Amino acid sequence: MNDTIFGKIIRKEIPATIVYEDEQFLAFMDINPVAKGHMLLIPKEQYAWIHEVPDSVISAIFIKSKELMIALKKSLDCDFVELRVVGEEVPHAHIHLVPRTLADGIHGPHVSYANAEEMNEIAQKIILAQQEQ
Amino acid sequence: MNDTIFGKIIRKEIPATIVYEDEQFLAFMDINPVAKGHMLLIPKEQYAWIHEVPDSVISAIFIKSKELMIALKKSLDCDFVELRVVGEEVPHAHIHLVPRTLADGIHGPHVSYANAEEMNEIAQKIILAQQEQ
Repeated sequence: MNDTIFGKIIRKEIPATIVYEDEQFLAFMDINPVAKGHMLLIPKEQYAWIHEVPDSVISAIFIKSKELMIALKKSLDCDFVELRVVGEEVPHAHIHLVPRTLADGIHGPHVSYANAEEMNEIAQKIILAQQEQ
Repeated sequence: MNDTIFGKIIRKEIPATIVYEDEQFLAFMDINPVAKGHMLLIPKEQYAWIHEVPDSVISAIFIKSKELMIALKKSLDCDFVELRVVGEEVPHAHIHLVPRTLADGIHGPHVSYANAEEMNEIAQKIILAQQEQ
């Protein structure tokens, strides 16, 4: 039983702003975003660390990340999308996708742009952009 | 002609501490590391941004990243390896692999551990760890 916050999100026990879902993967908005559109992509199966994920899943999840990066770039006013796998926060491997602008100075102090309404609007844009791919 | 710093490294016009090379990819130590063992993995073919990389190369480069993460974890005293694709520094897609410890506070002020001799020792450890895989 995956009792992490991600397990609960996968089972829909707690709400999340989901922007992509299939049998294998789930993408949803980070609840503590460092930028507008900051999302998380996870495999539904739990692996504590990304280096424990089987190669076939690595392949599929990073191709999916690329699709989501393109969707973010199309849907938001950003110059590029940062991809980041850190891993110490939740023991369920996850990929951060963070829309960035060249001058955002995002790696200074952590600034959170969490705002439920705006986050939903952004999520909708991302959902639409994927359908256009 | 790829006249970025990475193009020059690929053509061996400027030196780099290479820890992995095959026909398709090259991995070398970052010259301005944020932690010991901080390396870069690049495709030899130039794509400005990671989202422009073809799916087959995405698949292969992230599987290679995973192998290098395992090598870093085996060879260095770290708790996990952060994987990061930013991209604004050099217009040639590259993956940062940064060995981390849970308490390193690495995302505070940028601290550089650049030290040529130590960097070489670390590179050797990583090379060896890969051969053991």
